[in-house]
Amino acid sequence: MIMLNKFIKIALSKAKKNSVDIPVCAVITKNNELIALKTNKREQNNDVSAHAEILALQEANKKLNNWRLDDCEMFVTLEPCPMCAWAIINARIKNLYFGSYDLKYGAFSCGLNLIKLANSKLSVFGGIEEEASNKLLDNYFKKLRS
Amino acid sequence: MIMLNKFIKIALSKAKKNSVDIPVCAVITKNNELIALKTNKREQNNDVSAHAEILALQEANKKLNNWRLDDCEMFVTLEPCPMCAWAIINARIKNLYFGSYDLKYGAFSCGLNLIKLANSKLSVFGGIEEEASNKLLDNYFKKLRS
Repeated sequence: MIMLNKFIKIALSKAKKNSVDIPVCAVITKNNELIALKTNKREQNNDVSAHAEILALQEANKKLNNWRLDDCEMFVTLEPCPMCAWAIINARIKNLYFGSYDLKYGAFSCGLNLIKLANSKLSVFGGIEEEASNKLLDNYFKKLRS
Repeated sequence: MIMLNKFIKIALSKAKKNSVDIPVCAVITKNNELIALKTNKREQNNDVSAHAEILALQEANKKLNNWRLDDCEMFVTLEPCPMCAWAIINARIKNLYFGSYDLKYGAFSCGLNLIKLANSKLSVFGGIEEEASNKLLDNYFKKLRS
Protein backbone atom coordinates (compact mmCIF):
# COMPACT_ATOMS: atom_id res chain seq x y z
CA MET A 1 0.00 0.00 0.00
CA ILE A 2 1.29 3.43 -0.95
CA MET A 3 0.50 5.92 1.80
CA LEU A 4 -0.14 9.01 -0.30
CA ASN A 5 -1.34 11.22 2.50
CA LYS A 6 1.46 10.24 4.86
CA PHE A 7 4.25 11.53 2.62
CA ILE A 8 2.41 14.63 1.43
CA LYS A 9 1.68 15.42 5.11
CA ILE A 10 5.38 15.06 5.96
CA ALA A 11 6.19 17.39 3.05
CA LEU A 12 3.56 19.92 4.16
CA SER A 13 4.91 20.05 7.70
CA LYS A 14 8.45 20.68 6.42
CA ALA A 15 7.31 23.25 3.84
CA LYS A 16 5.65 25.26 6.63
CA LYS A 17 9.01 25.84 8.30
CA ASN A 18 10.38 27.57 5.19
CA SER A 19 9.80 31.28 5.79
CA VAL A 20 11.83 32.97 3.02
CA ASP A 21 10.94 30.99 -0.10
CA ILE A 22 7.58 30.00 -1.54
CA PRO A 23 6.74 27.01 0.72
CA VAL A 24 7.14 23.86 -1.37
CA CYS A 25 8.55 20.54 -0.21
CA ALA A 26 9.36 17.37 -2.16
CA VAL A 27 9.85 13.86 -0.81
CA ILE A 28 11.27 10.89 -2.74
CA THR A 29 10.56 7.34 -1.61
CA LYS A 30 11.77 3.91 -2.66
CA ASN A 31 9.97 0.78 -1.48
CA ASN A 32 7.76 3.06 0.59
CA GLU A 33 10.75 4.46 2.51
CA LEU A 34 11.73 8.11 2.47
CA ILE A 35 15.13 8.58 0.80
CA ALA A 36 15.13 12.35 0.13
CA LEU A 37 13.30 15.42 1.45
CA LYS A 38 14.00 18.98 0.35
CA THR A 39 12.27 22.36 0.47
CA ASN A 40 12.43 25.15 -2.09
CA LYS A 41 15.59 27.23 -1.57
CA ARG A 42 15.71 29.54 -4.58
CA GLU A 43 15.87 32.73 -2.54
CA GLN A 44 17.88 31.29 0.35
CA ASN A 45 20.52 29.76 -1.93
CA ASN A 46 20.28 32.41 -4.68
CA ASP A 47 20.07 29.53 -7.14
CA VAL A 48 17.47 29.58 -9.92
CA SER A 49 17.49 25.77 -10.08
CA ALA A 50 17.01 25.19 -6.34
CA HIS A 51 13.36 24.13 -6.45
CA ALA A 52 12.39 21.47 -3.89
CA GLU A 53 12.06 18.80 -6.59
CA ILE A 54 15.51 19.39 -8.13
CA LEU A 55 17.17 19.38 -4.69
CA ALA A 56 15.34 16.17 -3.73
CA LEU A 57 16.35 14.49 -7.01
CA GLN A 58 19.98 15.50 -6.38
CA GLU A 59 19.81 14.07 -2.86
CA ALA A 60 18.29 10.80 -4.08
CA ASN A 61 20.87 10.59 -6.93
CA LYS A 62 23.62 10.94 -4.35
CA LYS A 63 22.10 8.42 -1.97
CA LEU A 64 21.60 5.77 -4.67
CA ASN A 65 24.77 6.81 -6.55
CA ASN A 66 22.73 6.84 -9.75
CA TRP A 67 21.03 9.54 -11.78
CA ARG A 68 18.33 7.02 -12.67
CA LEU A 69 15.82 6.68 -9.86
CA ASP A 70 14.08 3.51 -11.02
CA ASP A 71 11.13 2.40 -8.86
CA CYS A 72 11.16 5.68 -6.94
CA GLU A 73 8.17 7.90 -6.31
CA MET A 74 7.93 11.62 -5.66
CA PHE A 75 5.49 13.45 -3.39
CA VAL A 76 5.43 17.24 -3.69
CA THR A 77 3.12 19.86 -2.21
CA LEU A 78 2.77 21.86 -5.47
CA GLU A 79 2.51 20.78 -9.10
CA PRO A 80 6.02 20.87 -10.64
CA CYS A 81 7.08 23.52 -13.16
CA PRO A 82 8.42 22.44 -16.60
CA MET A 83 12.04 22.46 -15.34
CA CYS A 84 11.27 20.06 -12.50
CA ALA A 85 8.86 17.95 -14.54
CA TRP A 86 11.52 17.27 -17.19
CA ALA A 87 14.06 16.36 -14.49
CA ILE A 88 11.52 14.02 -12.83
CA ILE A 89 10.81 12.36 -16.20
CA ASN A 90 14.52 12.00 -17.00
CA ALA A 91 15.21 10.50 -13.58
CA ARG A 92 12.69 7.72 -14.38
CA ILE A 93 10.51 8.51 -11.36
CA LYS A 94 7.64 6.01 -11.54
CA ASN A 95 4.79 7.90 -9.89
CA LEU A 96 4.43 11.58 -9.08
CA TYR A 97 1.90 12.73 -6.49
CA PHE A 98 1.27 16.40 -5.83
CA GLY A 99 -0.94 18.60 -3.64
CA SER A 100 -1.91 21.93 -5.20
CA TYR A 101 -2.49 22.39 -8.91
CA ASP A 102 -0.49 25.22 -10.50
CA LEU A 103 -2.81 26.40 -13.25
CA LYS A 104 -0.37 29.11 -14.36
CA TYR A 105 2.98 27.32 -14.61
CA GLY A 106 2.25 23.68 -13.77
CA ALA A 107 3.81 21.40 -16.37
CA PHE A 108 0.79 19.09 -16.45
CA SER A 109 -2.07 21.57 -15.96
CA CYS A 110 -0.68 23.68 -18.82
CA GLY A 111 -0.96 20.78 -21.25
CA LEU A 112 2.69 20.75 -22.29
CA ASN A 113 2.60 17.01 -23.01
CA LEU A 114 6.13 16.49 -21.70
CA ILE A 115 5.38 12.84 -20.86
CA LYS A 116 4.41 12.13 -24.48
CA LEU A 117 7.41 14.10 -25.81
CA ALA A 118 9.78 12.03 -23.66
CA ASN A 119 7.94 8.77 -24.36
CA SER A 120 7.91 8.39 -20.56
CA LYS A 121 5.90 6.00 -18.39
CA LEU A 122 5.54 8.51 -15.53
CA SER A 123 2.11 8.46 -13.87
CA VAL A 124 0.93 11.74 -12.33
CA PHE A 125 -1.66 12.14 -9.58
CA GLY A 126 -2.73 15.65 -8.50
CA GLY A 127 -4.84 17.01 -5.64
CA ILE A 128 -3.58 14.96 -2.68
CA GLU A 129 -4.16 16.95 0.52
CA GLU A 130 -5.08 19.74 -1.87
CA GLU A 131 -6.89 21.92 0.66
CA ALA A 132 -3.98 21.94 3.11
CA SER A 133 -1.50 22.54 0.27
CA ASN A 134 -3.55 25.46 -1.09
CA LYS A 135 -3.89 26.96 2.39
CA LEU A 136 -0.14 26.84 2.97
CA LEU A 137 0.52 28.76 -0.26
CA ASP A 138 -2.34 31.22 0.32
CA ASN A 139 -1.02 32.07 3.80
CA TYR A 140 2.46 32.66 2.41
CA PHE A 141 1.26 35.04 -0.29
CA LYS A 142 -1.10 36.84 2.09
CA LYS A 143 1.79 37.45 4.47
CA LEU A 144 4.01 38.58 1.60
CA ARG A 145 1.49 41.20 0.50
CA SER A 146 0.91 42.60 4.00
CA MET B 1 29.12 43.84 -30.80
CA ILE B 2 28.21 40.39 -29.54
CA MET B 3 30.75 37.86 -30.73
CA LEU B 4 28.50 34.87 -31.24
CA ASN B 5 31.07 32.61 -32.82
CA LYS B 6 33.73 33.43 -30.25
CA PHE B 7 31.75 32.11 -27.28
CA ILE B 8 30.28 29.11 -29.09
CA LYS B 9 33.82 28.22 -30.21
CA ILE B 10 35.07 28.43 -26.63
CA ALA B 11 32.17 26.17 -25.58
CA LEU B 12 32.91 23.70 -28.40
CA SER B 13 36.57 23.42 -27.45
CA LYS B 14 35.66 22.69 -23.81
CA ALA B 15 32.88 20.24 -24.73
CA LYS B 16 35.40 18.21 -26.75
CA LYS B 17 37.40 17.46 -23.61
CA ASN B 18 34.40 15.78 -21.97
CA SER B 19 34.80 12.07 -22.71
CA VAL B 20 32.21 10.41 -20.45
CA ASP B 21 29.10 12.51 -20.94
CA ILE B 22 27.34 13.67 -24.10
CA PRO B 23 29.59 16.61 -25.09
CA VAL B 24 27.67 19.81 -24.37
CA CYS B 25 29.08 23.04 -22.98
CA ALA B 26 27.35 26.24 -21.87
CA VAL B 27 28.86 29.69 -21.42
CA ILE B 28 27.20 32.66 -19.71
CA THR B 29 28.37 36.20 -20.42
CA LYS B 30 27.57 39.62 -18.99
CA ASN B 31 28.66 42.76 -20.82
CA ASN B 32 30.40 40.50 -23.32
CA GLU B 33 32.58 38.95 -20.59
CA LEU B 34 32.52 35.26 -19.72
CA ILE B 35 31.20 34.73 -16.17
CA ALA B 36 30.41 30.99 -16.23
CA LEU B 37 31.40 27.94 -18.27
CA LYS B 38 30.27 24.39 -17.58
CA THR B 39 30.09 21.08 -19.42
CA ASN B 40 27.45 18.36 -19.08
CA LYS B 41 28.24 16.16 -16.05
CA ARG B 42 25.18 13.94 -15.68
CA GLU B 43 27.12 10.68 -15.84
CA GLN B 44 30.27 11.95 -14.10
CA ASN B 45 28.33 13.47 -11.19
CA ASN B 46 25.48 10.92 -11.21
CA ASP B 47 23.11 13.87 -11.06
CA VAL B 48 20.07 14.00 -13.36
CA SER B 49 20.05 17.82 -13.22
CA ALA B 50 23.74 18.29 -14.07
CA HIS B 51 23.26 19.49 -17.65
CA ALA B 52 25.79 22.10 -18.80
CA GLU B 53 23.17 24.86 -18.75
CA ILE B 54 22.00 24.20 -15.17
CA LEU B 55 25.59 24.03 -13.90
CA ALA B 56 26.46 27.27 -15.72
CA LEU B 57 23.36 29.02 -14.30
CA GLN B 58 24.34 27.87 -10.80
CA GLU B 59 27.87 29.18 -11.30
CA ALA B 60 26.62 32.56 -12.57
CA ASN B 61 24.06 32.76 -9.71
CA LYS B 62 26.89 32.22 -7.26
CA LYS B 63 29.19 34.73 -8.96
CA LEU B 64 26.55 37.48 -9.07
CA ASN B 65 24.99 36.40 -5.75
CA ASN B 66 21.60 36.55 -7.44
CA TRP B 67 19.28 33.97 -8.99
CA ARG B 68 18.20 36.60 -11.51
CA LEU B 69 20.75 36.94 -14.30
CA ASP B 70 19.53 40.20 -15.80
CA ASP B 71 21.39 41.34 -18.92
CA CYS B 72 23.19 38.01 -19.19
CA GLU B 73 23.42 35.86 -22.31
CA MET B 74 23.92 32.14 -22.74
CA PHE B 75 25.84 30.33 -25.46
CA VAL B 76 25.41 26.55 -25.60
CA THR B 77 26.53 23.97 -28.14
CA LEU B 78 23.20 22.09 -28.21
CA GLU B 79 19.61 23.30 -28.04
CA PRO B 80 18.44 23.14 -24.39
CA CYS B 81 15.96 20.54 -23.14
CA PRO B 82 12.72 21.68 -21.41
CA MET B 83 14.36 21.49 -17.94
CA CYS B 84 17.18 23.81 -18.94
CA ALA B 85 14.97 26.08 -21.05
CA TRP B 86 12.65 26.75 -18.11
CA ALA B 87 15.62 27.48 -15.83
CA ILE B 88 17.08 29.86 -18.48
CA ILE B 89 13.73 31.64 -18.76
CA ASN B 90 13.33 31.90 -14.97
CA ALA B 91 16.86 33.27 -14.61
CA ARG B 92 15.88 36.15 -16.95
CA ILE B 93 18.63 35.33 -19.47
CA LYS B 94 18.23 37.94 -22.22
CA ASN B 95 19.50 36.10 -25.28
CA LEU B 96 20.13 32.42 -25.85
CA TYR B 97 22.40 31.28 -28.68
CA PHE B 98 22.87 27.60 -29.48
CA GLY B 99 24.72 25.42 -31.99
CA SER B 100 22.95 22.17 -32.89
CA TYR B 101 19.20 21.84 -33.07
CA ASP B 102 17.72 19.00 -31.01
CA LEU B 103 14.71 18.00 -33.06
CA LYS B 104 13.78 15.23 -30.61
CA TYR B 105 13.94 16.91 -27.19
CA GLY B 106 14.82 20.55 -27.87
CA ALA B 107 12.49 22.86 -25.98
CA PHE B 108 12.18 25.27 -28.90
CA SER B 109 12.26 22.88 -31.87
CA CYS B 110 9.50 20.81 -30.25
CA GLY B 111 7.16 23.80 -30.18
CA LEU B 112 6.52 23.74 -26.44
CA ASN B 113 5.92 27.49 -26.33
CA LEU B 114 7.62 27.85 -22.94
CA ILE B 115 8.48 31.49 -23.67
CA LYS B 116 4.83 32.34 -24.22
CA LEU B 117 3.75 30.33 -21.16
CA ALA B 118 6.21 32.23 -18.96
CA ASN B 119 5.44 35.58 -20.62
CA SER B 120 9.22 35.84 -21.06
CA LYS B 121 11.26 38.22 -23.20
CA LEU B 122 13.97 35.65 -23.97
CA SER B 123 15.25 35.77 -27.55
CA VAL B 124 16.53 32.48 -28.98
CA PHE B 125 18.98 32.06 -31.86
CA GLY B 126 19.83 28.58 -33.16
CA GLY B 127 22.38 27.19 -35.60
CA ILE B 128 25.53 29.11 -34.61
CA GLU B 129 28.59 27.04 -35.59
CA GLU B 130 26.02 24.37 -36.34
CA GLU B 131 28.26 22.18 -38.47
CA ALA B 132 31.00 21.98 -35.83
CA SER B 133 28.42 21.37 -33.08
CA ASN B 134 26.76 18.58 -35.06
CA LYS B 135 30.12 16.97 -35.83
CA LEU B 136 31.09 16.94 -32.16
CA LEU B 137 27.89 15.10 -31.22
CA ASP B 138 28.07 12.73 -34.20
CA ASN B 139 31.62 11.73 -33.30
CA TYR B 140 30.61 11.06 -29.68
CA PHE B 141 27.71 8.80 -30.66
CA LYS B 142 29.77 7.01 -33.33
CA LYS B 143 32.44 6.23 -30.73
CA LEU B 144 29.76 5.11 -28.24
CA ARG B 145 28.33 2.62 -30.73
CA SER B 146 31.67 1.13 -31.71
